[in-house]
Order: sequence, then structure tokens, then C-alpha cells
Amino acid sequence: MHNEQIVLSARPNGMPNSEHFRTESIPVKDPENGEVLLKTLYISVDPYMRGRMNDRKSYVPPFALNEPLSGGIVAQVISSRSTELTEGDIVIGNLPWQKFITAPDASLRKLDPDLAPISASLGILGMPGLTAYFGLLDIGDPKPGETVVVSGAAGAVGTVVGQLARIKGARVVGIAGSDDKLHYLKNELQFDEVINYKTENVRDSLSNTCPDGVDVYFDNVGGDISDAVLSLINKGARIALCGQISLYNLEKQDHGPRMQGQLLINSALMKGFIVSDYAQHFEQGAMELAKWLKEGKLTYKETIVEGFDQTLRAFTGLFTGDNIGKQLVKVADPD
Amino acid sequence: MHNEQIVLSARPNGMPNSEHFRTESIPVKDPENGEVLLKTLYISVDPYMRGRMNDRKSYVPPFALNEPLSGGIVAQVISSRSTELTEGDIVIGNLPWQKFITAPDASLRKLDPDLAPISASLGILGMPGLTAYFGLLDIGDPKPGETVVVSGAAGAVGTVVGQLARIKGARVVGIAGSDDKLHYLKNELQFDEVINYKTENVRDSLSNTCPDGVDVYFDNVGGDISDAVLSLINKGARIALCGQISLYNLEKQDHGPRMQGQLLINSALMKGFIVSDYAQHFEQGAMELAKWLKEGKLTYKETIVEGFDQTLRAFTGLFTGDNIGKQLVKVADPD
Repeated sequence: MHNEQIVLSARPNGMPNSEHFRTESIPVKDPENGEVLLKTLYISVDPYMRGRMNDRKSYVPPFALNEPLSGGIVAQVISSRSTELTEGDIVIGNLPWQKFITAPDASLRKLDPDLAPISASLGILGMPGLTAYFGLLDIGDPKPGETVVVSGAAGAVGTVVGQLARIKGARVVGIAGSDDKLHYLKNELQFDEVINYKTENVRDSLSNTCPDGVDVYFDNVGGDISDAVLSLINKGARIALCGQISLYNLEKQDHGPRMQGQLLINSALMKGFIVSDYAQHFEQGAMELAKWLKEGKLTYKETIVEGFDQTLRAFTGLFTGDNIGKQLVKVADPD
Repeated sequence: MHNEQIVLSARPNGMPNSEHFRTESIPVKDPENGEVLLKTLYISVDPYMRGRMNDRKSYVPPFALNEPLSGGIVAQVISSRSTELTEGDIVIGNLPWQKFITAPDASLRKLDPDLAPISASLGILGMPGLTAYFGLLDIGDPKPGETVVVSGAAGAVGTVVGQLARIKGARVVGIAGSDDKLHYLKNELQFDEVINYKTENVRDSLSNTCPDGVDVYFDNVGGDISDAVLSLINKGARIALCGQISLYNLEKQDHGPRMQGQLLINSALMKGFIVSDYAQHFEQGAMELAKWLKEGKLTYKETIVEGFDQTLRAFTGLFTGDNIGKQLVKVADPD
């Protein structure tokens, strides 16, 4: 077994590239009591990880320099000194980007491959799905007939947001960056309207697709697109701030029209959140998502690249819009 | 009886001045059935009125050109054809800026001069007091030991906000624009800390006075001052957007650092409001304010100019910081 890890070797200023990371060979570490040795199957790459590459306060502490990056990983137990887990078990955890990982069993949650495909636990049934669930339903709280706009609509979170809004009886307008994505949103996910921000005038398209204004805005991107959506909010609008992906690689402070006046005259609410704010309710959220998935009310798509050495490409692709739905790296098949 | 009214003769772009208003003589109109004739005693001038001078959507519809301005007024009935009101009664209503006003009784609320000074119904027991009450307690929701920052701290709303925050056990930091105001806030209202935004570096002073960060920000002013406060918010902070007085007379769109990222990483809430959002709860709010006033837990100050012809000066003075506490125009004494 040849083990490798990907470490952060320098903090990026702007878009990360190969200069900021290093792949290195490391030994496979035998598990001690209460630990298991894992073979990595799927690595999740997520936009929020960009914030952790900076040395400043964000959602979560920064990644340490010359330490492996980490995040959601699905893996298989290949050797166990745990009483909880046995060889062959499939688990999920927040784990280092390594091909083989030695981890305490308490940091892992066992998955049942019969309930849903194991990769779904990194997407619609995992962090991105729960992010959509709590941000939309708690902060956005869409009512039947209201207009919900979601930016980053074709991503792992946005695809779930739009479907949940439709389950709640709202009209959904999705903003994304390619015609393939628009086609998927409109034809497979039944979004009411879609806007290609790369080829359309977003302000004009929003005016046309939101003739009754915007009641809920689920913001994954920030920047100019969000300025345009905010200019159309209705009295009592709710804005869930989930991400600001357009800004993560900016090299200087983001400036734009201040929107407090717009929130003020509309008695509108804007709320930032991170999924862990809702940790106490994860079980309820995951159960409801799984139910809707089983009933066919929710569906999902994954963009999967193969090979541990493709992990960084998959990550940077998040910022150039390469993925539809959840972006994953498939490292190995389960035994 | 010589009657006069003040009308909006042109829409200001920037700071209003005498070119935008006209004072004209008008007849005194005899009351019809259900109406009363009123003598104006106190006219309230409030920052929100600036928004109504523009021909665009704001909290409330724009003032019409060549029609009288209007707002909160305390007046005395001098002749009545109402079964509800009799000569000598003191009333409050949303009324035109006239020396004598003929109005239907249904648009008026009778005041009891024995309960509180009649002018208080335009200030601490009226719209500004209720604005502070609902904005701070519903949106800000300060907890004991938390740090509350209020901008426009010496105004009709800000003075109440700070006192309410102290009643709730929070630390209060007030930002205002003169040493007289700071002295009043610190020594008469017992604010914990005060900052003069005209003479101090607001960012430095905020850092010094908010060593544990900012949990609640009650924003009356917007602009750079608010940018500085927002840079210090804590996880779970609440920002009540009440006014943006620094921007009301800007001639172009206000730009600044976008703050969505800051709200996002702190799971912070920002909510605009107007006091009428809470109309169903006015009675409860007014009762509690009156109770605290009676118990001496709240106090207030008024800046009063005398004479109907001083009304516009009093109004524009709101934007140059002339007032401490509620700005009123005293037009006449009650009989």
C-alpha cells in the first residue's frame, strides 16, 4: 500500500494553483486500540475550503501550513482495532486528504449502503443537502406562490435549494453559468426559470423572470449577481447568505453598492449561516431529505473525477464552474 | 385666525433647502360633521421624512408636489362637530404642516395631559420610542453582558435604544457627533462608552470600547460608521437597520465594502424595519415605555424650536446634528 497526502504548502492570494499544494508520500500508520485503518473512496471538495486556506477567521479555523487538507471523506475500513467498526464497513468523517487514513472510530459515522448510494452522504444527504435544507427552510421560509431566487443554482447546495422551494410551492428562478446547467435545472429539476449569468444581462433577466419581485434569495455567490437580485426584493424578503463564491479568490476587499437602504425600506431580513449552526437538528433534516429522495421528490447529480491526483483540479474547478451538482473525487472502489 | 401651510414645491436632490418648500396662506376650513378644527401645538420633524421627498419607493409613499408636508402633530381642538372630541381636547395624529387643521375625528387619538407631557407622545411615548423599543428588543434582543452599539445615539430613537439596552443588562456604546451629546449620553443616560465620530477615529475607538466585540448594532446612520461597527461583530450578532441618515441626502448611489461576507462568517442577522411593522403590538410597547418612564428607568430630552416658520430649519437641522433627543417645533401653547 502506497500512501500519499496533499498538504497546503503556501497560502494562496487569489485563485489557488499547484504552487500552493504539495503531494507527498507518507507511511501507512497501523491503527492503535480504538482506531481503524481506512481506504479513501470519495473525497468531497467544497467551496468553503477556500476560506480555510487563508490565515484569518472564517467559518472554521484555517488549515495549517504543511499539514494535510481535510474535509468530508467516505472511506472503507480495511483493518480495525475498534469494537465499533469491522473490516469492510463504509464510514464518513471529516478526514485528511490521504489515500489511506488511520482514525479513531469516534470520529467516524458508519453508513448503510443499502439506504442510499454511499456518495450521497457527501452531497444531498450530507453537508450540502443539510445546508440547503436549513438555510432555505429556516431563514428563507418560502411560502406557496412566492418567488425564490437561488444563485449558484447548479451546485451541490443550489440544486437542493431549488427543489426544496418547489416542494414548498414556491416559484424558483435559478442563476447558473452554462447552458448545460440551465438545461439540467429547467428540464430535470423543474426550475420555473433559469438565467445564464455569463451570457445574459442578469438585471434584465431577473426583471423578466421575477415580475412579482423576489421574496426569498438564497445566495451562494455574492458580488454583482447578488446586487441585481437585491434590487428586486419585496417587502418582507428573506435573504439566506450561504456562500460568496465569487469573492473567495478576490485579492482585495469587495466593494459594491451598500444594500442596507434596500433592506431597510423593505423590512427585509439578511442572515448568514453555516450548516453547523443547525447541528442539533441534523438528524431531523437528514431524515426528511432521505424521505423526499425516496419518494422521488428530490433528485441529484454528481460530477465525479477519478483519481487521488485529480483532487486539486476538482477543487479549483468549483471556482470555474466545472461541476453540475456535487463535485466528488473517486479515489478507489470499495472492496 | 391666519392659516398657513408648508408645501413641497420641488423634489430635493441632496440636502433640502428653501428652494424646495413654499409657505402659503390658506383659509381656515370649517369642520363638517365628524370633523374638528385643530390648532397645531407641536410639529414633529423626523429623518424619515427626507425619503418621502423623493419620488421613489421608500417606507411610505412620497409626498405629493405642491401639497402640504405631513407627519406627527399634537394639536388642540378649538371647534368640534364630532361626538368623540370636544373643544379643548389635546389630540395627536398624522396631519398636514398647517397652523390650523380641519380633520376627521377618526384620524386622531386623544391624549391625557395628566399621564405625561403632551409632547412626549411625539417622542419617547410615540413613534421614535416605539421604533427603539421594537427594533432593539425584537431584532437586537440584547442579553445581559452583551455589547450593544447604537449610532445616531443622541437622537430621538438612539437615546431610547441605549437606555433600553441598559435596562436589559447590556453594555452600551453610543456614537454621536458632539461633545455635548456625548456628555448627555454618558452622564445623564449612563451609556457605558461614547464615541464622537467627528473628532475620533471611529474604528480605533470602537476597538477600544468593544474589547469583546459587538453583539447588537442598532443602526441609525449607515455609511462608514456602520462599516466600522460591522467589522467588529461577534458570532450570532444582530443588526437592526432603523435608519441610514448619513445617506438620505447623497446625490448618488452609496458604495462601500460589501458586508455579506462578514455576516456570513459570523452567522449574523441584519434586519430592516419600520415601526409600523409592529403596529399590532403598539399598545403593549407604549404601556411598557410609559411604565419605565414613570419608574424613572427611562428619561428623555427634547430640542424645541419655537414658531411655525422654524419648521424647515428644525427639519434640516436633523441632518447637521442640531438636536439632542427629540426635535420638535412648538407652534402654539394650548389654551
